[in-house]
Amino acid sequence: MSYLSKVRESNPLVHNITNIVVANFSANGLLALGASPFMADAHEEVVDIAAFSSAVVLNIGTLNDYAIQSMVLAGQSANKHGVPLVLDPVGAGATSYRTAVTQKLVNEMQITALRGNVAEVANVIGESWSIKGVDAGEGDGDVVVLAETAARKLGCVVIITGKDDVITNGDNTYIASNGHPILKKVTGTGCLLSAVVGAFLAVSEGASLEAAVEALSFYGVAAEIAAELTTGQGPGSFQIEFLNQLSLVTAETYQDKSIIKQLR
Amino acid sequence: MSYLSKVRESNPLVHNITNIVVANFSANGLLALGASPFMADAHEEVVDIAAFSSAVVLNIGTLNDYAIQSMVLAGQSANKHGVPLVLDPVGAGATSYRTAVTQKLVNEMQITALRGNVAEVANVIGESWSIKGVDAGEGDGDVVVLAETAARKLGCVVIITGKDDVITNGDNTYIASNGHPILKKVTGTGCLLSAVVGAFLAVSEGASLEAAVEALSFYGVAAEIAAELTTGQGPGSFQIEFLNQLSLVTAETYQDKSIIKQLR
Amino acid sequence: MSYLSKVRESNPLVHNITNIVVANFSANGLLALGASPFMADAHEEVVDIAAFSSAVVLNIGTLNDYAIQSMVLAGQSANKHGVPLVLDPVGAGATSYRTAVTQKLVNEMQITALRGNVAEVANVIGESWSIKGVDAGEGDGDVVVLAETAARKLGCVVIITGKDDVITNGDNTYIASNGHPILKKVTGTGCLLSAVVGAFLAVSEGASLEAAVEALSFYGVAAEIAAELTTGQGPGSFQIEFLNQLSLVTAETYQDKSIIKQLR
Repeated sequence: MSYLSKVRESNPLVHNITNIVVANFSANGLLALGASPFMADAHEEVVDIAAFSSAVVLNIGTLNDYAIQSMVLAGQSANKHGVPLVLDPVGAGATSYRTAVTQKLVNEMQITALRGNVAEVANVIGESWSIKGVDAGEGDGDVVVLAETAARKLGCVVIITGKDDVITNGDNTYIASNGHPILKKVTGTGCLLSAVVGAFLAVSEGASLEAAVEALSFYGVAAEIAAELTTGQGPGSFQIEFLNQLSLVTAETYQDKSIIKQLR
Repeated sequence: MSYLSKVRESNPLVHNITNIVVANFSANGLLALGASPFMADAHEEVVDIAAFSSAVVLNIGTLNDYAIQSMVLAGQSANKHGVPLVLDPVGAGATSYRTAVTQKLVNEMQITALRGNVAEVANVIGESWSIKGVDAGEGDGDVVVLAETAARKLGCVVIITGKDDVITNGDNTYIASNGHPILKKVTGTGCLLSAVVGAFLAVSEGASLEAAVEALSFYGVAAEIAAELTTGQGPGSFQIEFLNQLSLVTAETYQDKSIIKQLR
Repeated sequence: MSYLSKVRESNPLVHNITNIVVANFSANGLLALGASPFMADAHEEVVDIAAFSSAVVLNIGTLNDYAIQSMVLAGQSANKHGVPLVLDPVGAGATSYRTAVTQKLVNEMQITALRGNVAEVANVIGESWSIKGVDAGEGDGDVVVLAETAARKLGCVVIITGKDDVITNGDNTYIASNGHPILKKVTGTGCLLSAVVGAFLAVSEGASLEAAVEALSFYGVAAEIAAELTTGQGPGSFQIEFLNQLSLVTAETYQDKSIIKQLR
């Protein structure tokens, strides 16, 4: 059975500590997909929630010291209870505060999957990278090397999204080429992808790399279909149709349209 | 005149202390309905805002200690000034923290209406209830008994939503059967219902039970129409059409389609 | 070249310190327009972000003491680095706390543009004004006088929105008459306008008044087109189409439909 079908069958609880910009969109995207979102960051309860959730997703979009401490508590609880843990290091490298926070997070917990753009991932592992105009092209060996280096250093799956997406655990590496540029015109589409990866990891039974690759295919194909159905209409209509497609796209559809290349 | 017409005529100010997931959707739903939302939780101003509002709605979705204190201040101010007060105990029972917070809130203020699912309401009054797979069926005496027990214990209207909804003040009890399952695929539809109940209470002149019953009918019928108009399209389209219908459905429409049964 | 074209060409970074109700809508509106939103309020990073942004927009929608201090830090950093600074004094006058906060903000930093309704602007400069039912009609001399007084007192562009909008720097004054009443049925349309003004100021090279006038025309025309395309459908559909139009409307379109009158 596909991971998507497993998500839809078991409705895994996904605990999100996220930000004021994307909380609604992330919850609606997870619901559309078939998962059960739980947004909470109070120190008094995140340890409990992470423990009984099927995945925990940390997103530093509008971080502050309170939320960071929430993330540490939830992340360590996820680790203790064997719950898959996703980190989205939004804006790492944009400020020294964000860079320091993401490095603190990866030091204090074991991430299952890290999802960011190339500059964010580079900054998480202490490499500098120009933030503007960088995309992970299929032939761009540097991005692949960066992803694999990060995966080995952090001991986790690393997903670098760009024009093409790199997904690697350090040993095996895939390039995923679905998706659509209009995703960049809707806020939180990267954050929601991280949450969707969490939902797929929730039903992966340890096959994190395979589940992540499938999550990327599903998400990219849903975006392509939504973009095609709203051609010329604008990002408002795309956003709504994308939520629709997250609920409508089947495993057969995205497996049929999926463009995945295994590098090694 | 129907309570809906009164809301649309007087645009009551509804003060919401709510969460980062549903704040936007709740505000847009209240505006569509014809009410005036005011979202604010600063300790320095909630006492004032609650005092001059026509209803106060407290929602613990992404609670923390600061927001709880805001709720206590606003709730007590609402009580002092005779302003109807709605509590949505999101996730009560899911963590001991949430259970404790909701019990603290009902102890420190007099709620006018409590709106939650069966597990949430049970936990507010200290009864345990399994959280998963519980719906308030018409023939499910236990849910009715629970609602009536809670209403008497708290001295307020209790609304338990599920497949069917129970609305009671402890003496008179109604079952409302409008609505649509796709509501569960959009985050915050329960929270927005609580806010809509607040708007109806704002114009109820003390007839809380009747106003709550009418709010449930209105909301359920709007959902049914929106679901029919977006059949097969997905939760994105439903969400938008639902906002449309909250502004378009008239008292005549929902009174015509309303499925209400008085139990006693 | 129009300011709109400059925004779309340079994608200016707009730093927003805003509220939980409108953060998502503001970010999506800025993205649709062609700007790059950055929402962040942590004290550890707002000074840095304001410094490298092309505009800073402060919105007190769901203010609290932490966010106010964030605004002071970001505003003073914007001033130091010559970055245009917009203030949206949401609800000034509704509570004494809000009034005091807005007065503190304008005292501790130099605003480039203030955008509010007539009651909000009046309260920022310490004049009382009835909050309900006040619109800036073309023939309403008092609103124009208020706007010009505020502009001179604060040394900035003042934009008072209502049925018609007044835009002035104290010396030159314009009345803009585009827009549509359904804007009031969608939460955050005023807040997003303030953010859009920020994006236009970001590319204004000091021509703040001209950029603000153009921003108002663009925004009003986009609303008119969206309202026409969704006639009779409701505020949900309007909201989505409005986001579409923010990405679709060209400088030619809004310059053609713009209704601007220079008073002096």
